[in-house]
Amino acid sequence: MDDTKRGFLKKTIGVLLGASGLLAGRAARADAAEPPDVPQWMKSPGAGFNEYGSPAKYESKVTRTFIRSQPGTTGSGAARTPLEALDGMLTPSGLHFERSHSGVPDIDPARHRVLIHGMVKRPLIFTVDALLRYPMVSRIHFIECAGNSQLMYQPNPPNLTAGQTHGLVSCSEWTGVPLRLLLEEAGVDRTAPWILAEGADAAAMSRSIPMAKAMDDAMLALYQNGERLRPENGYPLRLFLPGYEGNMNVKWLRRLKVVAAPIMTKDETSRYTDLQADGKALMFTYPMEVKSVITRPSHGMTLAGAGAYEISGIAWSGNGTIAKVEVTTDGGTTWVGAPLSAPVLPRAITRFRAPWRWDGRAAVLKSRATDDTGAVQPERAAFIARHGTNATFHFNGIQAWSVAANGEVKHVYA
Amino acid sequence: MDDTKRGFLKKTIGVLLGASGLLAGRAARADAAEPPDVPQWMKSPGAGFNEYGSPAKYESKVTRTFIRSQPGTTGSGAARTPLEALDGMLTPSGLHFERSHSGVPDIDPARHRVLIHGMVKRPLIFTVDALLRYPMVSRIHFIECAGNSQLMYQPNPPNLTAGQTHGLVSCSEWTGVPLRLLLEEAGVDRTAPWILAEGADAAAMSRSIPMAKAMDDAMLALYQNGERLRPENGYPLRLFLPGYEGNMNVKWLRRLKVVAAPIMTKDETSRYTDLQADGKALMFTYPMEVKSVITRPSHGMTLAGAGAYEISGIAWSGNGTIAKVEVTTDGGTTWVGAPLSAPVLPRAITRFRAPWRWDGRAAVLKSRATDDTGAVQPERAAFIARHGTNATFHFNGIQAWSVAANGEVKHVYA
Repeated sequence: MDDTKRGFLKKTIGVLLGASGLLAGRAARADAAEPPDVPQWMKSPGAGFNEYGSPAKYESKVTRTFIRSQPGTTGSGAARTPLEALDGMLTPSGLHFERSHSGVPDIDPARHRVLIHGMVKRPLIFTVDALLRYPMVSRIHFIECAGNSQLMYQPNPPNLTAGQTHGLVSCSEWTGVPLRLLLEEAGVDRTAPWILAEGADAAAMSRSIPMAKAMDDAMLALYQNGERLRPENGYPLRLFLPGYEGNMNVKWLRRLKVVAAPIMTKDETSRYTDLQADGKALMFTYPMEVKSVITRPSHGMTLAGAGAYEISGIAWSGNGTIAKVEVTTDGGTTWVGAPLSAPVLPRAITRFRAPWRWDGRAAVLKSRATDDTGAVQPERAAFIARHGTNATFHFNGIQAWSVAANGEVKHVYA
Repeated sequence: MDDTKRGFLKKTIGVLLGASGLLAGRAARADAAEPPDVPQWMKSPGAGFNEYGSPAKYESKVTRTFIRSQPGTTGSGAARTPLEALDGMLTPSGLHFERSHSGVPDIDPARHRVLIHGMVKRPLIFTVDALLRYPMVSRIHFIECAGNSQLMYQPNPPNLTAGQTHGLVSCSEWTGVPLRLLLEEAGVDRTAPWILAEGADAAAMSRSIPMAKAMDDAMLALYQNGERLRPENGYPLRLFLPGYEGNMNVKWLRRLKVVAAPIMTKDETSRYTDLQADGKALMFTYPMEVKSVITRPSHGMTLAGAGAYEISGIAWSGNGTIAKVEVTTDGGTTWVGAPLSAPVLPRAITRFRAPWRWDGRAAVLKSRATDDTGAVQPERAAFIARHGTNATFHFNGIQAWSVAANGEVKHVYA
């Protein structure tokens, strides 16, 4: 636990749990002091070793959610992380969200090339093997699709799980080569303000990247959670721009062109712009704003009666580090600080937790995140009042879950 | 980068790279300023989405190493993490090392029970669903098998990769219930010094655990790297004792009995004791000592000629946090500090990196870790002089790799 948050925990326990014991009544009293019967799986040797492991068969329902592609649009769409089934700050790579514009290309790393050209002294072509020899950095960061939570723009709350609604965000350890090193080797013109980044998928997914970000913390990521990237996350390499909207982190990167003005690609004009209520559109909106969601309990779960529970959720900000998460169980009348699980890292998912003794009556749960720039996650109504409902991107309003007296948890606007 | 280590980096670059440029000559000069030919994988849509992802087919050789079980000994042995193919601090769960004494049991979580009994006021039985309601904590920690690197006790250096030699260590984010909470609920007799922990595998793998550790940072781990535990790592839950030798972190945990003296189970008498040169055996040797290994370059790799490389490796200590890693490329005459990749966490793998300009002549690479207790990883000869070669556990001597003029990297005792 983050030491600076221990005060919050004490306050939280006081407010949410009341005077009664934290844990009583959850475990069964053992009738005897001897072990239970020997289960069948102790009576014969188990399975042997395997070269690459998989989740337990009993967890086979913990999957990404996606809609099967229509003919002719293979792989255009998104697959969402089942946030409600996970805990901690990391996302297993097999459950990391996917957003693709023309499917996952089958790239032979021995034949893949990355070109740096445009306003540079020495245009350069890199093989993957060459890139693997450069100095690397590792960092734990989230990625969030600009379109995450877009169903929250709709007038009625989606009848969907936390992951189906907010699961276009995931968090991994990314390892790669600082882009600055490669640009410097190419003799980049530092006065050039933009870089076109292009992917090697059939959509040639392309975005204009600010030079300042490229020279700051951008990397060409080659490893994810310790191993080489998964195909759906850009194998053999992707651009990684910590905190910036997902599709700027161009997957299957093949080209960086240093240019004097943004290229106005289809992916930053017809898509990934934010049409406001007044008819004007926001463009080049990069960092994903401060946000949080309670993952347990959440929509689709049923609480097994009054008693002690843990409220668990995730918070993140593309502008910095999570400074505080507050939780309410009474729809917003009372907010208490929820302890943050260490390490609390910039532009990474941060797990928060708060114990809660449910009294068995109807309740409304919300979480509200604040980052170290002072930005506070807005209520949904305030977000909509400001941005309207024309847009589909950059929704970061507060998520509310109702708990009914029968224990059913549902998405509500409250 | 850890800010406190920037000084080290400057020194490292000065010593290891010399005066010449860091990167020159690695990338090909592009002949034209235009993109390379459009590859075949951009000419038609790629693959659609999948529910649970897998590594790229081009990485299919990145696997755990194990020896197929003999008949009658299913799953008795170990599978090792391919450290040389990984980067960062985390191990993908599919490549996490495995050590099993009678295979991986197929445990139905709905029927699994955990009993706490012995010197407690209220013996308790927990279902997995009950445990999932308790307050949880998440922490990034390594686990290392006590027998990791045991081939280094042999008189000749093993002709094996870094992972085949040292791959019984892995690092994950673990999430679970603090054991202290459950013991307190059972009304534990705090004067009782020991707890027997028993697994639900066919070996009923059992160890005696000190009460002080159980009441400190021990947890019943339910999640690994965000998702529920993998079967080979203890599904549905395992005991987790940060920094302690691997097999004390009892997998498939079914029973904790609070007792007045260690039980002297087969797993702490016939195994996991350290026979010293004088014929006496060390028992109950818990924390894994400070250690490091260079993973790239390492045995089995071939450098493609003189030039710039990155030396990359991992360090860890069961007694605390890595304070410093030093690297030598001349067999130990000169040591320089290698920057540590943030976050540097207690009892977690810490990645270190140092740039190296290889001059094309024979070289010997080593790394030497120091933890925040001041403990320094010993040279192999010093370790053997102190402990002899009767033991098979707790080897933490320095690993040396030789680089020949033809670029071949081999394990040497140097």
